Amino acid sequence: MTSTYLRNRPEIETVIKRPAITMAIGAHPDDIEFGAGATLAKWSAQGAQIIFVIMTDGAKGTWDPEINQHLLAVRRQKEQHRAIDKLTSNGIVEFLDAIDGELTPTARRIAQVTSLIRKYKPETIISHDPWKRYRLHPDHRNTGFIVTDAVVAARDPHFLKELGSHHRPSHLLLFEADEPNYIEPLTPEYVQAKIDALMCHESQHETSMEIAGESTDEVTRFEKLVFAMAEKVGDKAGVSLGEEFHIINDI
Amino acid sequence: MTSTYLRNRPEIETVIKRPAITMAIGAHPDDIEFGAGATLAKWSAQGAQIIFVIMTDGAKGTWDPEINQHLLAVRRQKEQHRAIDKLTSNGIVEFLDAIDGELTPTARRIAQVTSLIRKYKPETIISHDPWKRYRLHPDHRNTGFIVTDAVVAARDPHFLKELGSHHRPSHLLLFEADEPNYIEPLTPEYVQAKIDALMCHESQHETSMEIAGESTDEVTRFEKLVFAMAEKVGDKAGVSLGEEFHIINDI
Amino acid sequence: MTSTYLRNRPEIETVIKRPAITMAIGAHPDDIEFGAGATLAKWSAQGAQIIFVIMTDGAKGTWDPEINQHLLAVRRQKEQHRAIDKLTSNGIVEFLDAIDGELTPTARRIAQVTSLIRKYKPETIISHDPWKRYRLHPDHRNTGFIVTDAVVAARDPHFLKELGSHHRPSHLLLFEADEPNYIEPLTPEYVQAKIDALMCHESQHETSMEIAGESTDEVTRFEKLVFAMAEKVGDKAGVSLGEEFHIINDI
Amino acid sequence: MTSTYLRNRPEIETVIKRPAITMAIGAHPDDIEFGAGATLAKWSAQGAQIIFVIMTDGAKGTWDPEINQHLLAVRRQKEQHRAIDKLTSNGIVEFLDAIDGELTPTARRIAQVTSLIRKYKPETIISHDPWKRYRLHPDHRNTGFIVTDAVVAARDPHFLKELGSHHRPSHLLLFEADEPNYIEPLTPEYVQAKIDALMCHESQHETSMEIAGESTDEVTRFEKLVFAMAEKVGDKAGVSLGEEFHIINDI
Amino acid sequence: MTSTYLRNRPEIETVIKRPAITMAIGAHPDDIEFGAGATLAKWSAQGAQIIFVIMTDGAKGTWDPEINQHLLAVRRQKEQHRAIDKLTSNGIVEFLDAIDGELTPTARRIAQVTSLIRKYKPETIISHDPWKRYRLHPDHRNTGFIVTDAVVAARDPHFLKELGSHHRPSHLLLFEADEPNYIEPLTPEYVQAKIDALMCHESQHETSMEIAGESTDEVTRFEKLVFAMAEKVGDKAGVSLGEEFHIINDI
Amino acid sequence: MTSTYLRNRPEIETVIKRPAITMAIGAHPDDIEFGAGATLAKWSAQGAQIIFVIMTDGAKGTWDPEINQHLLAVRRQKEQHRAIDKLTSNGIVEFLDAIDGELTPTARRIAQVTSLIRKYKPETIISHDPWKRYRLHPDHRNTGFIVTDAVVAARDPHFLKELGSHHRPSHLLLFEADEPNYIEPLTPEYVQAKIDALMCHESQHETSMEIAGESTDEVTRFEKLVFAMAEKVGDKAGVSLGEEFHIINDI
Repeated sequence: MTSTYLRNRPEIETVIKRPAITMAIGAHPDDIEFGAGATLAKWSAQGAQIIFVIMTDGAKGTWDPEINQHLLAVRRQKEQHRAIDKLTSNGIVEFLDAIDGELTPTARRIAQVTSLIRKYKPETIISHDPWKRYRLHPDHRNTGFIVTDAVVAARDPHFLKELGSHHRPSHLLLFEADEPNYIEPLTPEYVQAKIDALMCHESQHETSMEIAGESTDEVTRFEKLVFAMAEKVGDKAGVSLGEEFHIINDI
Repeated sequence: MTSTYLRNRPEIETVIKRPAITMAIGAHPDDIEFGAGATLAKWSAQGAQIIFVIMTDGAKGTWDPEINQHLLAVRRQKEQHRAIDKLTSNGIVEFLDAIDGELTPTARRIAQVTSLIRKYKPETIISHDPWKRYRLHPDHRNTGFIVTDAVVAARDPHFLKELGSHHRPSHLLLFEADEPNYIEPLTPEYVQAKIDALMCHESQHETSMEIAGESTDEVTRFEKLVFAMAEKVGDKAGVSLGEEFHIINDI
Repeated sequence: MTSTYLRNRPEIETVIKRPAITMAIGAHPDDIEFGAGATLAKWSAQGAQIIFVIMTDGAKGTWDPEINQHLLAVRRQKEQHRAIDKLTSNGIVEFLDAIDGELTPTARRIAQVTSLIRKYKPETIISHDPWKRYRLHPDHRNTGFIVTDAVVAARDPHFLKELGSHHRPSHLLLFEADEPNYIEPLTPEYVQAKIDALMCHESQHETSMEIAGESTDEVTRFEKLVFAMAEKVGDKAGVSLGEEFHIINDI
Repeated sequence: MTSTYLRNRPEIETVIKRPAITMAIGAHPDDIEFGAGATLAKWSAQGAQIIFVIMTDGAKGTWDPEINQHLLAVRRQKEQHRAIDKLTSNGIVEFLDAIDGELTPTARRIAQVTSLIRKYKPETIISHDPWKRYRLHPDHRNTGFIVTDAVVAARDPHFLKELGSHHRPSHLLLFEADEPNYIEPLTPEYVQAKIDALMCHESQHETSMEIAGESTDEVTRFEKLVFAMAEKVGDKAGVSLGEEFHIINDI
Repeated sequence: MTSTYLRNRPEIETVIKRPAITMAIGAHPDDIEFGAGATLAKWSAQGAQIIFVIMTDGAKGTWDPEINQHLLAVRRQKEQHRAIDKLTSNGIVEFLDAIDGELTPTARRIAQVTSLIRKYKPETIISHDPWKRYRLHPDHRNTGFIVTDAVVAARDPHFLKELGSHHRPSHLLLFEADEPNYIEPLTPEYVQAKIDALMCHESQHETSMEIAGESTDEVTRFEKLVFAMAEKVGDKAGVSLGEEFHIINDI
Repeated sequence: MTSTYLRNRPEIETVIKRPAITMAIGAHPDDIEFGAGATLAKWSAQGAQIIFVIMTDGAKGTWDPEINQHLLAVRRQKEQHRAIDKLTSNGIVEFLDAIDGELTPTARRIAQVTSLIRKYKPETIISHDPWKRYRLHPDHRNTGFIVTDAVVAARDPHFLKELGSHHRPSHLLLFEADEPNYIEPLTPEYVQAKIDALMCHESQHETSMEIAGESTDEVTRFEKLVFAMAEKVGDKAGVSLGEEFHIINDI
């Protein structure tokens, strides 16, 4: 039993100490941008080093049955690189290349993420909330459990000893949370960076952003929507704009 | 990331457009009737084609240690056929015959349900809510996750290509939900059809319906109970009778 | 479908009939004491026989990378024996010795717990709530699902027939619950017995109890904390001290 | 390392001491009769108690796509009972009822067979040779590995302690062996008993015995074939009739 | 038990009836060409339709750590298409795109190959011998077992019913066999077609064919080697050139 | 396809170039000594660095049901250290501590051994032959397949990239081989070192070496047996003493 037993859950928070190294782990290219793009842009501007980990190759992310999946995977890697450049000037990305839609929380995957946590030693880790209800895509749930299991493994010295010395992150932030308890206050420039990063995922405009074609109207509509959501989240914490997470500080 | 991100969750709803083809997927014979029997009877009366999928053979559904399980499985198939005939005049049933109590959400099972979704192309799918807390039977949880994973696989053209062309259902309704957000308004005839269907599962009278023996009193007591629950659910939506679900419309 | 469908969930309860035989199942040595130590001490004083089942060997429970894990496992077994003696004079313990941190809810593990339930025939079973959100350690979640699956298997006569005749417990109490609905009223002597039992797990003082060294101050601080939590829980049910659970009575 | 290292492999043997208790483990109903029917008839006549274990329900053993599999399983259980009565007057049979064609060598299955070995405490165990090449049906290979793994588990006191006290068989005989080293000498009455037992599996006449219809000619042809094979095997050991196995005596 | 029991194993054969439809299943691009390229060229010339199934994406088939694996996969698909065109004018290819090096014989993979067998209904299937000793690459062994399991599943009407109606191939030929019992007689043009097909896999020249660079000498050396092997195999059956297999005719 | 296709299998060999770094991988403490103890002693004397990898904790290696398994594991670690000191003056040992008897060839285990191969970069790897027939203990078979899979993964640059840069061993030697093709010539001092190392495993004297008690006679008998086997093996290659392996040089 960890020491969590001894503590009360925090109320809604809005400030954590400036993170020096942050690792964001998403199921597919574009998931991190949707969940935490503006927060990462802000932290990067404050000097943080951001590591992006993409669990799957994203090769099923299309409605077009004729697309070659390997070429789609290559295209999405390039889009991901461009998106990262919108959020931070010195981002690092690791593609784990699991088959899109077939990610499972195996010991192998947990070891892989544990290895990356021990390599980069992030203070803060950001990923999908595995406990979220009524979210259909299994890759999101499975990424979340891979990450929570890997955090436990990474912090304890006797787990997976062959994967380097242990490292205990200070914070785990989960996006897509049913029970958010942390809101990162944002300014418009960071929300705009998030939008700019999302727009780099051109292969996903139709399927994930409902932007059909290239018309300015569609893009403008999408931008307004992202700003509206950031406002709605910000309202909960009394700030103008925000992204929300469930934060776990007792790791 | 699917387009769910861009939308708000619906409030409690009570009307979906009349479903032409509906697939109901239950862990054992009788689970569909408990969860959605009246709703299916209503939709059938409105012209819908109903496909019933029974994941396990139900061969452990008895308190009698001496029963031959294969014969119990045969008996329960017959009961299921009779129950369907109480709900709809042209029902179709697929028995997947997993071993009762040992259902696991493997890639094989997900592919099997994906195959059926692509074969019948239902607009609406009904099954167990996998996120429900404090429900002990693992077959119910596992059926729920098999179905949610299969819905994602069925809708995307590059999943399981050998299993026919993709199909995107419009609605997923989950019964046994901790967070219901959809109530189907019912009239007494449909609740009665549900009761009639449940009564066809004679092998389950003792274990699942607490009807000991054949006395009219016991049956009447059971009928009153089912009506009382339909009233209680209906109250939540301001209708006289109802069955409740968590509905997911962004698939 | 079990008969749960026919019943309403109980409100918060505070009394169950005096349990003659109780089985408590924890992921690691010390988890049972944290979750239900005072309750078990009380029931034992009232004449109950308590069976303790420890799923893993606890061999990763240290921050010291140099410790030999086999020796740590031996030490923790001894600590567990001593802790049990603080709670009950005739406790029985079964060590299942899964590798700490690698417990998975396999058919093998479920069969193992089913076997123990059928051997000892407890009226009441106590374990981790598998549905709890935002608890990181996977062994806790996995222990919970192993137990809930084993309860279903143990109660039905056709499951795992080679493992002895079936047994249906009357109550399942889950600690670490997000939705507690049962509070056991306690007196100070039982809370003190819980503390005494926890103090026996000396190898865990630093990692789980944040007691650094042997100073009386640290121990006093920890004791106050445990009493404070018991008071806070007791308040919910209008009693002075308590431990809380989610209880399931329809098994 | 077991003591096998210290011994040479036996040459072809033809006599083992009269077995008091023998357990024969087959993938499907009829497999034991094909592999060891005459041997078991002989040993039973000499006073041995024979335990038959049938791993799968045999429900796919037909070329008729319209057959109800549960009814086929029931039919095959009856056939198996009748076949056993041709071989021995006091046979015992355990049906493990895995799904035909989907048997896998999981920890659960190994525990199940271990449990039976410890329950009946056979001196001799007979099953499929898992190392045989160029045999297509995976149930045969998997049964073989389940049995060899279970023999190791059953013999050692610390394996699967919840499944009763350990038992070390003296001999393991594997039929379908590429490297037979043991031939059981037979007389015609035992070969005839084997044929009589095989003929009880009427549902398999067409698929496994190539007996189409009920004509005496077909049956006679089949009988001659079985006798011819027993002669061919007997020749290898200088006896008139025989069944062959790979025997392992260092267990 | 299949009817194999009733038959003797065939001696070395050299002629099977002209196959109308043949399915060749290899672990990686180029494996089929190595194992059966000349045979397929011959059968195609005789009028057979050839279906090529490639289990993995081949994306680890390089010694260059800097190569993008998705681009390598695309390149190897193109090479495979060109190689097929050297063997047959109307070849069909199915890429199953498992991750190179991580192929496992899961129920999902077996179902996938079963599905293809039922779709194309080949008389003859060619693949890796799973029983071969001392071959290191696990993808070859696993492909072999996936294929043998799928052949059993495909032929029986009650297996995997959702995957189309059953189909029983007449012959299974396994290359890389330790116990070859079938040799296909060849003429030089077919061996040359095999070499031409292999040469299309340019990305593999260094790693699999030990052809460093583009010099004519290296290629000539490789061609001589392939001819020398075909002669050596042919010698066993008294023909000038051949490829060898273990053939199974009782399916 | 690897380049193996292009080469003939070697005949029986007796000399490989002096190995600088050798990794020996055994299922339990004492397996390496039985299989290759004298060879390792010889190579160490010639200057090689030897790495010992022990897959399981050996905690089931006793006939005494009362032994505490954790204490037995500790004892066997100490015995292993002493045994290594008999074979080499600067041996390194890695205990992977899988549960004895439950080793399975999972991706996790393969990654673990891959990691060690890349860390120590051995020229030669020695382990169990996974293809050996009629050896009952599954840990030996599974260790063999874990090692062969890990050798493939370790050598290729795109496998398990998070586990360090790739390394290609030159030789894989498999003991317990049905088809030995390599014999290491030995002198009596190395066979004596093997015996001395085996004698260090005192906990195994009864179960694996059939040495009951401490009498000099029993030990002498055992020593004679080991020398007799070394002579028998040596005979095959025309040398006085030897240990035999199946060697694979095309990795």
